[in-house]
Amino acid sequence: MSGTVVVGLDVGGTSTRATALTLTGERLGTGRAGGGNPTSHGAEQAAVELSTALREALRVVDPARVHAGAVGLAGAGRLRADPDGRAAFDRAWSDVGLRCPYAVYGDALVGYASGTAAPDGTILIAGTGAIAAQVRDLRLDRIADGHGWLLGDAGSGFWLGREAVRALLADLDAGTVPGPFGRRLLGELTGATGVAARPRDTVDAVVQAVTRRPPVELARFAPLVVDAAVAGDPVAAGLLHRAATHLVDSAARIRPADAATPLVLGGGLLTGHTPLGAAVRAEAGRRWPDAPVHPAGDGAAGAAWLAARTLPEVIDPVALHALLVPPTG
Amino acid sequence: MSGTVVVGLDVGGTSTRATALTLTGERLGTGRAGGGNPTSHGAEQAAVELSTALREALRVVDPARVHAGAVGLAGAGRLRADPDGRAAFDRAWSDVGLRCPYAVYGDALVGYASGTAAPDGTILIAGTGAIAAQVRDLRLDRIADGHGWLLGDAGSGFWLGREAVRALLADLDAGTVPGPFGRRLLGELTGATGVAARPRDTVDAVVQAVTRRPPVELARFAPLVVDAAVAGDPVAAGLLHRAATHLVDSAARIRPADAATPLVLGGGLLTGHTPLGAAVRAEAGRRWPDAPVHPAGDGAAGAAWLAARTLPEVIDPVALHALLVPPTG
Repeated sequence: MSGTVVVGLDVGGTSTRATALTLTGERLGTGRAGGGNPTSHGAEQAAVELSTALREALRVVDPARVHAGAVGLAGAGRLRADPDGRAAFDRAWSDVGLRCPYAVYGDALVGYASGTAAPDGTILIAGTGAIAAQVRDLRLDRIADGHGWLLGDAGSGFWLGREAVRALLADLDAGTVPGPFGRRLLGELTGATGVAARPRDTVDAVVQAVTRRPPVELARFAPLVVDAAVAGDPVAAGLLHRAATHLVDSAARIRPADAATPLVLGGGLLTGHTPLGAAVRAEAGRRWPDAPVHPAGDGAAGAAWLAARTLPEVIDPVALHALLVPPTG
Repeated sequence: MSGTVVVGLDVGGTSTRATALTLTGERLGTGRAGGGNPTSHGAEQAAVELSTALREALRVVDPARVHAGAVGLAGAGRLRADPDGRAAFDRAWSDVGLRCPYAVYGDALVGYASGTAAPDGTILIAGTGAIAAQVRDLRLDRIADGHGWLLGDAGSGFWLGREAVRALLADLDAGTVPGPFGRRLLGELTGATGVAARPRDTVDAVVQAVTRRPPVELARFAPLVVDAAVAGDPVAAGLLHRAATHLVDSAARIRPADAATPLVLGGGLLTGHTPLGAAVRAEAGRRWPDAPVHPAGDGAAGAAWLAARTLPEVIDPVALHALLVPPTG
C-alpha cells in the first residue's frame, strides 16, 4: 500500500479516538483508548492513552506514509502553557513511529470540522455541559457559555437534570401530586415513588439525595427528561423547549442575526436524532432561516481533515471533506 | 422587681440573641453570643453560646421569675432526632438557673411571630438563602423552597449574586462592554475592571474567581446588586425585579390565591427599607391586594411572645404581642 495517510485524534474526557485515512477516504484503521486530556488526567496518562489509540489505528500502516496529523482536545489553548503535556504528546507521537508534525485544535473546532467544510459557521455543543463557538477561516473565533454548571451550561444535560429536580420540588412544595415523570425521578432519587405523609420529608430526601453527590452528576437525569418528553410528558417537553431556547440564545450571542453559514450540532444531546436536537433545529430555523444545520460527525475524522487540507497535494479541501468526513444523520 | 418574666432566644448561624421581658413589655436584659446551632456548630459549642447569651440577658433578673421561654432555631425539627443537641440545650438552660420549661420553634415561625400576632399567615425570608412558610394556628404548616443554592433559594442573596455574574458573562460573550455595574463586579472578581484583549481570558478569569470559593459565597455580591439598583442601573434593577417575582412565586405555592392574612418579610434582604423588600411588597400587593405586609422584627422577642402567650395570666395574646414585639419599619 502506498499513498499519503493522515491521522486524526479526538481526545475526550472519557475516551480517545484515533483514525488513519488515505486522501481518498479509505479508512486504514481506527483506535480507541481511555480519556487522554493532560489537564484532567496528567501528562503521563494522556501520553499512554494517546499512543494506545494511535498504535491501534496504525496497526497496518507504515508510519512513514503519515504526512499530517491533528489532535482535537478540550482546552487545547492550555496545552501551550503546559510544557509537560506538550512533551507527553510529542513522545506519544514519536513512540508510534510518526515523524510528521501534528497540530492541536480545540475540540469545538474539531467538532465543527466533523460537520462541515465551510470556513465560517457556528458549532453548538450540548452534553453534560454546553458551549457555542463561532468559527472563522476554520479557527475558533468567539465562544459563548461553557462557563460550567455553577454559572452556565444553560440548556446542557446538567441544566436539564437540575431543572427536572426543581420542577419536582416545586410540585412537592405546592402539594401537587407528581405526574409519571416526577414519580420516575422521585424513584431514582429516593428509591420510592410516593410522597411522604409530611411532604416536606420527601422534599428533604430529594435535596439530600442530590447534595450527597457532586452537582455535575445531576446530568444523569437528562436521559430521563428526554425519554419522558418523547413519551409525551408536558413538563419534560417544556424543559426540552427551554433548553433549546437557552442553547440557541448562547449561539446567538456570537452568531450574526442574519447568518446563513452552517450551524453544526454536537455533543450527546444534539447529535443523532435526539429530541433536543430537533428542538434546537426548530428554534435555529426560526432565527436563521437560511442556515444549513449539520450534525457533528466523527471527531477523529474531522481532525484528520483539518490536518490534511494543508498538504500540498490537496487541491480541493471541500471535496476532500466529503471523502474523509462522510455526512452522518 | 417582681412579676413574671419570659425569655426568648433567636439562634442563628452566626449569632445567638437572647432577651428577657416582663409581661408589660419591659426589656430587662438582652444577650448576644456566637452562632449556636447544634447541627452546624456541634452540641457543646451550641450550649456554650446559648448560656453566654442567656446569662447576659438575665444579668439583673432572678431566674426564678422566668416562667416561660422559647428558642427559635433553623432546622428545629432535627433537634428531636438529636439527643446530644437537646441535652446541650437543657444543660445551658439549667446552668443559668432557669427552672421553667422551654419550647423550641423553627426560625421561620419565630420570624413570623416577630412580625405579627395573627394565628394564620405567611412568612417569606430572603438572606443568603430563601424560604417561605405558611403558618396555621401559630404552627409551621407548609414550606416552599429553602432547597439550598444548588436546587433552589430562588430570589435569595446567592441567586442575586449568581445571576449578576451570569449577566456579566453574557455581556462578555456577546462582546458588549460591561456597564458600571458589570465593571464593579468585574473589579471585585478579577481585580481589574477592564476586559482583556481576548475577552475569553476575562471570562475564564471570572469563572475561576467564582469557582475558587464555595458556591454559596456568590451571595456576597447581593449588596452590590442592591446598591447598583438603587443607583439606577437597569440590569441590577431587572435582577431585583426577577428576584422579587421568584420569592413571591415561592410564597404563592403555599399561600392561597385569595389570602388576606398577613405576609411577614424576614431576612437581611427583605427587612428594613430594602429595595428588594419594596419590590416584594409591590409584587405581593398585586397578588394579594387585601393582605397586610409586615417586616419581621426582633426574633428573640418573637420567641419570647410565643412562650408567653401560653401562660395562664395572659388573657389577650394579641395585646401582649404589641407590648413584647413592638412593630418595626
